[in-house]
Amino acid sequence: MKKGFRTFQPRFNTWDTQLHFPTNPHFLNEWRLHIDDAQTQFAGLSIAQRAQFLNDLAANFLNAKAEISKVYLRESGLSSERFEAEFERTHRTILIFAQHILKVDWQKTERSETENIQFSKQTLPLGTILVLGSSNFPLAYSTLGGDTIAALAAGCCVVLKAHPMHAGTSSLVAQCIAQTLQQWALSPFVFSHVLDDSYYWASTFAQESAVKAIGFTGSVKGGRALMDLAAARPEPIPVFAEMGSLNPVIISPNHHQEALAQIAKKLAYSIYTDAGQFCTKPGLILVQTEEANIFESVLLEELAHLPATPMLHPDIHAKFEARKRQVFQNKGFTRAENQEQLEGIFARWGIAKTQLQDLFNASSALEEVFGPFAVVCSYENIADLTKLFNILGGQLTLSIFTQEAQPNVQLLAAAQKIAGRIILNGVPTGVRVLEAMHHGGPYPASSDARFTAVGPDSIKRFTKEICMQVHDAL
Amino acid sequence: MKKGFRTFQPRFNTWDTQLHFPTNPHFLNEWRLHIDDAQTQFAGLSIAQRAQFLNDLAANFLNAKAEISKVYLRESGLSSERFEAEFERTHRTILIFAQHILKVDWQKTERSETENIQFSKQTLPLGTILVLGSSNFPLAYSTLGGDTIAALAAGCCVVLKAHPMHAGTSSLVAQCIAQTLQQWALSPFVFSHVLDDSYYWASTFAQESAVKAIGFTGSVKGGRALMDLAAARPEPIPVFAEMGSLNPVIISPNHHQEALAQIAKKLAYSIYTDAGQFCTKPGLILVQTEEANIFESVLLEELAHLPATPMLHPDIHAKFEARKRQVFQNKGFTRAENQEQLEGIFARWGIAKTQLQDLFNASSALEEVFGPFAVVCSYENIADLTKLFNILGGQLTLSIFTQEAQPNVQLLAAAQKIAGRIILNGVPTGVRVLEAMHHGGPYPASSDARFTAVGPDSIKRFTKEICMQVHDAL
Repeated sequence: MKKGFRTFQPRFNTWDTQLHFPTNPHFLNEWRLHIDDAQTQFAGLSIAQRAQFLNDLAANFLNAKAEISKVYLRESGLSSERFEAEFERTHRTILIFAQHILKVDWQKTERSETENIQFSKQTLPLGTILVLGSSNFPLAYSTLGGDTIAALAAGCCVVLKAHPMHAGTSSLVAQCIAQTLQQWALSPFVFSHVLDDSYYWASTFAQESAVKAIGFTGSVKGGRALMDLAAARPEPIPVFAEMGSLNPVIISPNHHQEALAQIAKKLAYSIYTDAGQFCTKPGLILVQTEEANIFESVLLEELAHLPATPMLHPDIHAKFEARKRQVFQNKGFTRAENQEQLEGIFARWGIAKTQLQDLFNASSALEEVFGPFAVVCSYENIADLTKLFNILGGQLTLSIFTQEAQPNVQLLAAAQKIAGRIILNGVPTGVRVLEAMHHGGPYPASSDARFTAVGPDSIKRFTKEICMQVHDAL
Repeated sequence: MKKGFRTFQPRFNTWDTQLHFPTNPHFLNEWRLHIDDAQTQFAGLSIAQRAQFLNDLAANFLNAKAEISKVYLRESGLSSERFEAEFERTHRTILIFAQHILKVDWQKTERSETENIQFSKQTLPLGTILVLGSSNFPLAYSTLGGDTIAALAAGCCVVLKAHPMHAGTSSLVAQCIAQTLQQWALSPFVFSHVLDDSYYWASTFAQESAVKAIGFTGSVKGGRALMDLAAARPEPIPVFAEMGSLNPVIISPNHHQEALAQIAKKLAYSIYTDAGQFCTKPGLILVQTEEANIFESVLLEELAHLPATPMLHPDIHAKFEARKRQVFQNKGFTRAENQEQLEGIFARWGIAKTQLQDLFNASSALEEVFGPFAVVCSYENIADLTKLFNILGGQLTLSIFTQEAQPNVQLLAAAQKIAGRIILNGVPTGVRVLEAMHHGGPYPASSDARFTAVGPDSIKRFTKEICMQVHDAL
């Protein structure tokens, strides 16, 4: 939902794929005519068929890898290592869901003990889902990303609003899905791909009665706008928005020097990889006053050695620079920054150093800065952090580094209230696709703390249950 | 959320229990001071302790049965048979949840295959829940009803806004909970009981930041007002509102005469029991034209024999009479009504007869009439019902009577889209507390089709998940 991508530098402007841009507005009428039949048809596949459909989709995606790679690299400014990792993850996610739905208990049957009645609880697709592609994951959280895969696995049709920053990649991936639907002789309306550089398609489909839920990854502002739109419908629908997060990292006291240095190195990498454009990038690091100096010096040294990388888009770069300057200006904050000569949209990392008292008065530092930036804040006692927890909103992650066997009990209890994932002795970046994963958290990290956006359980966002109660005929 | 209960007829006005009415407005400040500690304390019980707490609560509830019965009967106008059934059901529900939480997988652990990291998905209480007592179930959907039991079982504190029509019953039940908290030396703020005859407490607590979800049973208007309030909060929260439903009943063609008569008898009882004051009361019956006469004559005869019963409250009675008249006035509707001389708030059943064409033009007949009333509508062919499905909103239930081994395939597919529970050859009233139960449905039957308000799975409304990701210490 970013505007202005027409000002892309030529390097990122890859309109060599066949794009109809923006999508013809008459598409809506066509979609309305066909979506109910498409939803009925797709929901009518057996679970085994749906699993095979996903496997075929994975194969088509894999076949298009070389072509997708070419466009992805030119369009996103991300590295080829990152492409490999993101492609592999996306491909694997499709296969994980194909296996997962074969294990799910789609129907649980029970007989009433006292009456001769059979009750079956059936899990069914919720209906058609609107998914908005993200800016920062052209594959894993976009056209055939976690939301789309989970929705298709649940038996839901999808309307995908492509992110304009990688419309070319999106179109190629959409072609893989269209191809699979054709092979299966399924309606092309099972998956619809719309493109624009405004809010038109997103807000239009968000209000269509056939759309029963929305999946979104992006800013709090964008997510909240969708939530408000969805709540105001004649029939309100759930929005699963994965939004902003500071991802606080707490370094407990009493780390020996070598451990502190190791933590600093890990965090430098976590802050800077792919220009810090991750929703799980650590944005606030809390370290005990006496250990702060060693930690900071290793962190800055390490950052200085990491190679410069471009950001996703000039707009993102400009916003990053502005937000970074805003945080630096807070009273009691000192600035450390990349000293290299960098041109264009290459990311200039920044670290703001401060102490707890000043952090409390700096609201601009308590919101995500999207990019390679973090606030390093010193504290005297772990107990002082309690007040911080009270003003931090919901978080996707909270990391605790500790040398003890168990972290501080109060700290852990507070973390469980505000974070969707708690990491002991590790960095928050790198969200694994596992059954035990939870990627979400209390608002504003996500719109609903009860659901994960990553892992097989994310299918629960897009299913509903009904009860079949069968009496003997009269 | 009904006004004017101060005009109760003396028979229903049972202010012989110690009521602070309305609840002292300073209570809010006190609650704000204590709720976080209460939530932490209650969530800190082990699962075994929480199960024992529920068992003790069930015992205290049972001990208070005679006292509760006295107030319930005077306050509600419901029969002693109904009290017995509702009391037993409520008591059993507490025990079912005590057993259920011992079986739930509160923690699922997984190791990453390629890295030395342990991931555990933990299920935790969502936080404090606001529950609004219903008008029609003084026990089963009120103070210690399904929502409260599920919330406590999940480890959530509860704020209960008593329904003013049975504030006496509510206060007695609240005393059972307070007594159990005292026995366990738990904070009295684990369960707070507030009383008023306005929207003050409901709208106030709905906007408190410590409240993380709302449970409601009542009208679409009331439920939607809460949904809008919850969606507009700085931190939006989910509302689980179980609202209105027509509960259509489709009698497939080709029933022999005796079967038709049996169905009519069952439906008469289902329409009229407890003055039809059930969210699952059948409100629309569809019968094939040639079978309509036999069906209707048995239905009316049966209704004429059922004993008159009072409604819950003068306001409900007045609204019922007004809505009934409204539906009768539709073009092409004929009226059948109770011919007895009835006084006060005794329910005068009504049946409106019509045909499909006229039903389509009668929007007032396509909304719930709360009370002993149903529209009996004749149709020519099952296929004609497709158009009706397109204009019916979400339904709690949809019943199909058929002599075939399987109901019509299109009918079943359409039913799965709009109803939370599909009943073959049975009436919709009588919601069993079972794992396979689903009590809910697409909007406006409920606010979220994905969740049930009845049965052990209803606990899922009030839990969230987090991931604990544990690396080895450095």
